[in-house]
Amino acid sequence: MAGRLRFRLAFWPPFVAPERMFETAELGRKLSKEEHRTRIDVARVDLLNLQSTLLQRGQPAALILIGGVEGAGKGEVLNRLFEWMDARYLHTRAFGAPSEDEAARPRYWRYWMSLPERGHLGVFLGSWYTDPIVSRVLGTSTDAELDRSLSRAVEFERALAADGMLIVKLWLHVSKRDQARRFRELEKTPETRFRVTKRDWDFAQRYDDFRRTCGRALRKTSTGTAPWTVIDAANARYRDVAVAEHLVERLRSAAASPTPRPPPAAPAIRTDDPITVLDAVDLTETVSREEYQKALPALQAKLAKLCRRLPKRGRSLTVVFEGWDAAGKGSAIRRIIWALDARQYRVIPIAAPTDEERAHHYLWRFWRHLPKRGQVTLYDRSWYGRVLVERVEGFAREQDWRQAYLEINDFEEQLVEDRVSLVKLWLHISAEEQLARFEARKKLAYKQHKLTEEDYRNREKRFSYEQAAHEMFERTSTEYAPWHRIAANDKRAARLSVLRAVIAQLERDL
Amino acid sequence: MAGRLRFRLAFWPPFVAPERMFETAELGRKLSKEEHRTRIDVARVDLLNLQSTLLQRGQPAALILIGGVEGAGKGEVLNRLFEWMDARYLHTRAFGAPSEDEAARPRYWRYWMSLPERGHLGVFLGSWYTDPIVSRVLGTSTDAELDRSLSRAVEFERALAADGMLIVKLWLHVSKRDQARRFRELEKTPETRFRVTKRDWDFAQRYDDFRRTCGRALRKTSTGTAPWTVIDAANARYRDVAVAEHLVERLRSAAASPTPRPPPAAPAIRTDDPITVLDAVDLTETVSREEYQKALPALQAKLAKLCRRLPKRGRSLTVVFEGWDAAGKGSAIRRIIWALDARQYRVIPIAAPTDEERAHHYLWRFWRHLPKRGQVTLYDRSWYGRVLVERVEGFAREQDWRQAYLEINDFEEQLVEDRVSLVKLWLHISAEEQLARFEARKKLAYKQHKLTEEDYRNREKRFSYEQAAHEMFERTSTEYAPWHRIAANDKRAARLSVLRAVIAQLERDL
Repeated sequence: MAGRLRFRLAFWPPFVAPERMFETAELGRKLSKEEHRTRIDVARVDLLNLQSTLLQRGQPAALILIGGVEGAGKGEVLNRLFEWMDARYLHTRAFGAPSEDEAARPRYWRYWMSLPERGHLGVFLGSWYTDPIVSRVLGTSTDAELDRSLSRAVEFERALAADGMLIVKLWLHVSKRDQARRFRELEKTPETRFRVTKRDWDFAQRYDDFRRTCGRALRKTSTGTAPWTVIDAANARYRDVAVAEHLVERLRSAAASPTPRPPPAAPAIRTDDPITVLDAVDLTETVSREEYQKALPALQAKLAKLCRRLPKRGRSLTVVFEGWDAAGKGSAIRRIIWALDARQYRVIPIAAPTDEERAHHYLWRFWRHLPKRGQVTLYDRSWYGRVLVERVEGFAREQDWRQAYLEINDFEEQLVEDRVSLVKLWLHISAEEQLARFEARKKLAYKQHKLTEEDYRNREKRFSYEQAAHEMFERTSTEYAPWHRIAANDKRAARLSVLRAVIAQLERDL
Repeated sequence: MAGRLRFRLAFWPPFVAPERMFETAELGRKLSKEEHRTRIDVARVDLLNLQSTLLQRGQPAALILIGGVEGAGKGEVLNRLFEWMDARYLHTRAFGAPSEDEAARPRYWRYWMSLPERGHLGVFLGSWYTDPIVSRVLGTSTDAELDRSLSRAVEFERALAADGMLIVKLWLHVSKRDQARRFRELEKTPETRFRVTKRDWDFAQRYDDFRRTCGRALRKTSTGTAPWTVIDAANARYRDVAVAEHLVERLRSAAASPTPRPPPAAPAIRTDDPITVLDAVDLTETVSREEYQKALPALQAKLAKLCRRLPKRGRSLTVVFEGWDAAGKGSAIRRIIWALDARQYRVIPIAAPTDEERAHHYLWRFWRHLPKRGQVTLYDRSWYGRVLVERVEGFAREQDWRQAYLEINDFEEQLVEDRVSLVKLWLHISAEEQLARFEARKKLAYKQHKLTEEDYRNREKRFSYEQAAHEMFERTSTEYAPWHRIAANDKRAARLSVLRAVIAQLERDL
């Protein structure tokens, strides 16, 4: 009997209790005109002062998400924020259906692109929560898919919070009855009638489903660093005061936290185990000129053919080149682009970030240049700088580059899910070969510009770089985006290997 | 008889002589393998050295347009540039049909967005010439329309050149016979067959029309600062050497020109005529509280209704706010956004440019934030900073802010042509009223942050600013985008006037 009961509980449509999370926001709170005025006046002074403190101290940005059911006054709250704060450092973005350009990139692209820069305040109306919730309610996704989307949201927010961003998530709640009343009120006046759409009424019919799904979403994404705050929005005066005072509280604690980031710690390099996975690369392989001249055009033709199929399949190709200076990244890239139509590819060399880029999370600049589907993108160095040069040179704190492994894996997973064929190549040469190439460059007039003092300095740090690369391979060689270590002491062999690795990945994916 | 002959010449389809411009590029030039090798090697060293000179000296960018008939090898030349130069500072963009996001903005938006930054090299395959030429040949536009597009192109290039950008326009030419031969060759091999499309053969049928229209386009847009160079592209070796050597020549003369811009000249302010058009603004107008509270909601409702019609009509609204500090720009903006849906509007406050923005023409950052059609955009200060603060404070050279009037008018004309309703407002208050407001701000806690030492300093320069504003009105009050001077000593009157000006413009346009 007990077994049978369990069976029924597990597999039958369960009895669904009303979502209780929002009950605390249905207490019919109200505020008198006078109390509203007094408290808002206090909060406004605080908000303006806090805003300018954050800005002057160059603190990370604050992001305010305004979510909630229709009719709770999300747009009105947004307008209030404009009234209370300094609009020059307040940026708002309302997300509707994605545009063509947005739809041609991973789902989070438009959110990344809308993030506020350091010291500024971003306000989002609608967010990465909207689609997952609506799909679940409309039945086009399952609970498992909803949960998966929610985990992604948590990861995204965690990355931003780790970068110091303050994330305030407000959920404006009204009861089913108050929602319907509000819609009817809006419909009465010609000036506001347009605000209630057929979709709003359709969704109102599903109020209970929304309530349940939203409750689940809020619970699963209320993390320590980015909790949800549910606000009783039935009464506009109470709602506004609650929003203002909550913002003051959150901004104040952000302002109180130690601002000037501690100086980067000395990079932690293991010295107990000098053998790295790079030592296993066989650098003796060579390819004769004849062999090369026969193989190259055939491989290029094959690559060209595969790349032409990308747009039709709605797929992209992204190739990441990392490796030692003078390992031949540039010449390998040229062997690839020779096979392609200039309209289809882009080479993105990664240099030092600009000040706009520095005012964002370090992955922002890679999101920024993400191509649309159908394109081939070749990165000459990449987001791995965080765990290579930034780590070894001490530009990033240990906790930051350690966190980066996770963030990079998540980033690449999103690319692969968005139908990007991702090929990551490490071009490996021995220390001796590198020195020989540096010396040869000195003699070749049109290569002299490529050689700087820094190259020699970096060379001395080879051991540290080897350790960092080793750990990078260990932590970021995922099943969806493995690393290929290319033996590059022989240039011809390297170029052919690069082409073969790219072709193999495309053949698997297409 | 003579009269009749003239009649026929003028109105009948004229006898069309073959376009002679390209004859000089049909001389069958060739190069031996050895000569090609020698000359390319010399050019490569020069190119790399020049590229790094330009970069190190922080010189303005260079832009290379590669145009020409199909089959002339534009893509191959692009690949060569990647081979010869430092790819890290070389950015390419191939323009096809505009994307949805691009089509929702003025035609030049995507070209502005693709411009290289200072010290870098941009290479464009296809450009603002492609559409006008193709439309003319296909007969969807007239000669007059073609000429109009060409004038716009000249203005665009003039603005870039005035900002110091080097513009190299290469036209790769092959004869009708060589083009057909090239297509047939490409079609022979399976690896290259895809490169020849049906469209290519269709266009080849119209070779003579293209030749004529391209000739006209090249002649009309070969200006002193941005001339076209026609290159005989029948022989790949000759073509490549010609391109490389021409580039060396142009980059060398750019590098030889005086780099460090002369320090800004002292601003030229007329002092002989202290009366400005601002003196004619009647600042005595007042509106009673009762009148205001009656009029405001009615105007806001009217505005809301008009703005809702924008998306359906494929139109946008852009409102530019300029005027004295403390004139009430912010509060006027809030009165507008209260009427709008948060999803439809954006407030863009204009502060100091970022380093990425400084690395471009000064109008770049305004192009950058240009909204898509259907949107309402409110600028708190604007592109007029160039002829106001930058002029008065001496941040811009006289020749630069003088040139700006032209550039701004051209920019605004493009907006209006792209169905933007453009409203430009100058909020005017007297010097006494401004001082009184500054003093009042000191007392109001939540307005203190708005007051800085700089405000008082700027006040002392009121006379210079008045003169600059006067000239700005004179030169940029165009029939398609006139200035409105709003009397703002009385805040209520000002807010109503602002709403009325915006509504009037929308009523005219919708």
